[in-house]
Amino acid sequence: MPRTESPRRGRRPGDSGTREAILDAARARFSSAGFRAATVRAIAGDAGVDPALVMHYFGSKQGLFVAAMEFPLDPAEVVPRLVAPGVDGLGERLVRFLLSVIDELGDANPMLGLVRSAVGHPDAARMMREFLGEAILDRVAAAVSDIVGADRPRLRADLCASQIVGILVARQILELPELAAADRETLIGVYGRTIQGYLTGPLDSS
Amino acid sequence: MPRTESPRRGRRPGDSGTREAILDAARARFSSAGFRAATVRAIAGDAGVDPALVMHYFGSKQGLFVAAMEFPLDPAEVVPRLVAPGVDGLGERLVRFLLSVIDELGDANPMLGLVRSAVGHPDAARMMREFLGEAILDRVAAAVSDIVGADRPRLRADLCASQIVGILVARQILELPELAAADRETLIGVYGRTIQGYLTGPLDSS
Repeated sequence: MPRTESPRRGRRPGDSGTREAILDAARARFSSAGFRAATVRAIAGDAGVDPALVMHYFGSKQGLFVAAMEFPLDPAEVVPRLVAPGVDGLGERLVRFLLSVIDELGDANPMLGLVRSAVGHPDAARMMREFLGEAILDRVAAAVSDIVGADRPRLRADLCASQIVGILVARQILELPELAAADRETLIGVYGRTIQGYLTGPLDSS
Repeated sequence: MPRTESPRRGRRPGDSGTREAILDAARARFSSAGFRAATVRAIAGDAGVDPALVMHYFGSKQGLFVAAMEFPLDPAEVVPRLVAPGVDGLGERLVRFLLSVIDELGDANPMLGLVRSAVGHPDAARMMREFLGEAILDRVAAAVSDIVGADRPRLRADLCASQIVGILVARQILELPELAAADRETLIGVYGRTIQGYLTGPLDSS
């Protein structure tokens, strides 16, 4: 599915301003109310447009968030695609995809800005917790539950998130030297095993 | 080894002000120059005292950093103690210790403030990278190299750091719900296996 904020579609002259007004309203309301409590109806009201127009442009509240925050991937598309081939190698596929996004975007990665905001501001942390939960972690949990039949699927998704956010912080922000210098295939192998273990391995303490 | 900033030692009336002046100077210089470039001599100069007095109070530049930043553990004491029983169960011991520190300190954990600063400010990120590198990660790497004979020991230490900082961010700052609610023994089991794998497992991509 192409990113809905793509400028490549036939549009009338007034569209761009309207779209920007919706995105501005969305950023303000997601930031203040969080992801869960912000409604498409309220955002549309703030922007002075009909809620149907917001859905027309962005498809869903998640799609609106992805566009407003320039989140560099659309979870509604990415998660099913990564899960589809089955559980074998799922951890490696997930890490391979994420590292390719991270390396491609470099310092311009909007995820870094979102992590910075979330770490610095409790409201932004709540917004990220709610968005990540609904858009990514619940989806991953459902897939793991469906195809692996694993217990405590959402804890498994949260464990994965803890390693992935740790990669972002340690490699891209703290820039730990050996981690920053390691070649991508090594990291895919090592972190892929970790993520696979979190998704399908034992959760007991033995 | 007791924390060197403990107030429980015989001291003259003027000591407290001198100690605070040294800590203020240390915070300012570590923040601006980073951990590596800041010297005990320069910090002593800023505080108007003899470098020997700084060493008398804090033992080392690392000890001065630990005291100035209220870093909640002294790596010079903790790392050798965790490593001493040998490689078996090292990952679990490390995670058990860290989670106990994290849970004991709660929201008052100064590590959270340091992570927040490091994520928000490049100068603070460099300071943390240099301190973590010299005080913790190089020590862990040396131990792993000595007792396991593992290849690329510093990469292994950096991998561990990426999971540990991820635990801090995902559990204490983002407060991902299942991670925050999971009982400590479950987390020690799961994360302990991850850390053990990073310290002693394969680093190839297969």
